[in-house]
Amino acid sequence: MSKKITLQFGPKYKEYEVGDIVHLAKDSPLRLECGAEISDFPIAYQTYGTLNEDKSNAILVCHGLTGDQYLIGTHPITGKAGWWESIAGKGKALDTDKYFIICPNSLGGCLGSYGPKHINSKTGTAFNLDFPVITIKDMIAAQKLLVEHFGIEKLLCVIGGSMGGMQVLQWASTYPEAMHACVPIAAAPRHSAQNIAFHEIGRQSIIVDPEFCGGNYINEGRFPVNGLAVARMTAHVTYLSESGLQRKFGRNLQDRSEKSYGFEADFQIESYLRHQGMAFVERFDPNSYLYITRALDYFDMIEDNGGDLRNAFSHSTASFCIISFSSDWLFPTSEAKKVVRALAATAADISFMEIQTDKGHDAFLLDEPLFINAIEGFMKKIHKKVLG
Amino acid sequence: MSKKITLQFGPKYKEYEVGDIVHLAKDSPLRLECGAEISDFPIAYQTYGTLNEDKSNAILVCHGLTGDQYLIGTHPITGKAGWWESIAGKGKALDTDKYFIICPNSLGGCLGSYGPKHINSKTGTAFNLDFPVITIKDMIAAQKLLVEHFGIEKLLCVIGGSMGGMQVLQWASTYPEAMHACVPIAAAPRHSAQNIAFHEIGRQSIIVDPEFCGGNYINEGRFPVNGLAVARMTAHVTYLSESGLQRKFGRNLQDRSEKSYGFEADFQIESYLRHQGMAFVERFDPNSYLYITRALDYFDMIEDNGGDLRNAFSHSTASFCIISFSSDWLFPTSEAKKVVRALAATAADISFMEIQTDKGHDAFLLDEPLFINAIEGFMKKIHKKVLG
Repeated sequence: MSKKITLQFGPKYKEYEVGDIVHLAKDSPLRLECGAEISDFPIAYQTYGTLNEDKSNAILVCHGLTGDQYLIGTHPITGKAGWWESIAGKGKALDTDKYFIICPNSLGGCLGSYGPKHINSKTGTAFNLDFPVITIKDMIAAQKLLVEHFGIEKLLCVIGGSMGGMQVLQWASTYPEAMHACVPIAAAPRHSAQNIAFHEIGRQSIIVDPEFCGGNYINEGRFPVNGLAVARMTAHVTYLSESGLQRKFGRNLQDRSEKSYGFEADFQIESYLRHQGMAFVERFDPNSYLYITRALDYFDMIEDNGGDLRNAFSHSTASFCIISFSSDWLFPTSEAKKVVRALAATAADISFMEIQTDKGHDAFLLDEPLFINAIEGFMKKIHKKVLG
Repeated sequence: MSKKITLQFGPKYKEYEVGDIVHLAKDSPLRLECGAEISDFPIAYQTYGTLNEDKSNAILVCHGLTGDQYLIGTHPITGKAGWWESIAGKGKALDTDKYFIICPNSLGGCLGSYGPKHINSKTGTAFNLDFPVITIKDMIAAQKLLVEHFGIEKLLCVIGGSMGGMQVLQWASTYPEAMHACVPIAAAPRHSAQNIAFHEIGRQSIIVDPEFCGGNYINEGRFPVNGLAVARMTAHVTYLSESGLQRKFGRNLQDRSEKSYGFEADFQIESYLRHQGMAFVERFDPNSYLYITRALDYFDMIEDNGGDLRNAFSHSTASFCIISFSSDWLFPTSEAKKVVRALAATAADISFMEIQTDKGHDAFLLDEPLFINAIEGFMKKIHKKVLG
């Protein structure tokens, strides 16, 4: 099922091998929350490990906002290692010798799954901003179709961090019997005003870039490099913590011993942020960034459940491992505790850990021993309980 | 000394009455930290109240990053009330019936004081990015010349919040005998990596806007409206607190009962931020924004004093009232405490208050009763001590 498709990142058009792609909702369309119906749409995904005979060893990994399906191995665009090799792979917490890991590129994403870059059959050009606005519920509905495509009735585990963690929570609510275990990491039951504010800044940064062309940059042969880079710089600061930034960069100067008294990147933190911004435009699509941030802003499991989060989980039978990071100010521990309290009311099997670290929200992507141990321990428990 | 000058804000050129302007350093130039020398340069300022005969009732107010000299009365550009009417005016904590308040527009500012919009006599056009990079020390050196222009030997008090607070700290260090009292509010002894990061995002947002024209937008008849607005949106979020945003806006929708499933400003917080961005471009200059944020990034009284902040205040004889706000994450209480500890080592007269509020950094501009009471109380004490 491997397939090459043309993906544009930054000002370059290149052909990339994106791996497996399946077309879903062929028989009956998927109705999105906005009312639109989509059918026969592509979802790109990667699998790692082998599905066992009774299809009981499958783990669904849900990626974060700007993550993708390449959690293990070399990334086809960046050439870097997979984003979750800290916990997934041979002999790791998510052990590919034991489990079958599935990770789809999110609906609305830009690495092969159905998104704004796809061709609108009615016009013959990319959807761009005519792509329907999607939600977290829509994303997991597409994931569910992929899981069914594999003939898997019950997942061993659904796991993810950040946006992936919101998806895990939504899975537990929408498909309460579809998994034995849920691991939402660095997540919240809804997006706060501050979360929305930072996303809006990123979106405005992209939208006002003249190269954005109202979302039609591909048709125009242009690309909002600067707007997307500034959006990434802003988001990146929210992924780190003040104390972590201070420890890592402090007020250290970059490649100089004295201040330049100018607007070059005098400080290491400036140089680092500029690099983060420019690296991002090589691997991400501006329209996808708008769509996925919007999906997150619309996420509110409390409102969806009549103001009482306990209702979200009233049918859940899964075991939960909920993890937060002490210095995460994007989705702080106080948000994770709301989930814990709601689940406690359903007498669910819950583990909760706040990991002490100064690495902020991004800690779930890093080699953080306490975090990795927590996932390892939980997976052992689930393995014993379900697979014996 | 009142003078009309042409000030450009946003895409409009208009003539504004900017009030008083004085030319300083006429006899001998002021040497800036970057090495440049400036002379016969304008500083625009406002005064409120009357200077008494022995010139002992003068208060210097230092404004914040995007503040200006109009702390009381109608602002000539926005038409809004002065930015510090909560504590300054007739019968207020800074009582204009008792005190003579001086507030200069900062060096590098855009409301009449010497800055990048001024004409470079060598080229006949605006300095733009040829204006020398200035520092907090340079700013207070210009303020000192203004105070001397009034023949004031010793100020009753130097007071300011945010960047104004950093200036107060620098005054105490550079001119330790020039004031009876110092009131640094919501300030820090140096800019952290996170502070620099947010400033760099704002600067990049401006610089990459094609309308910026490498800083020469005035000559080109253009203006980086979008870049400056996004910079302001980013900064504005850092001036508020997560809990304050949640209380004020939460996830409330703006002018609609349902989500639009689009990229309009569905949420009140989005609409509010866009408004803040657009209002800002009508009253602020993009080059000034670069220069003043840079001055703040360069501010580090700890490094300046050999790594020991106590050295900064070793000659100070002033009374201090140091105020922080519990929800200020831009310049948190932990930074104010560094100042308190350093001052304590000099056996200085210190009052320190952390005001409990969810209004974040911007609390110093708001009608916050505990804060206002604290300033009132301190001013009464200083009045009695100095003026009897």
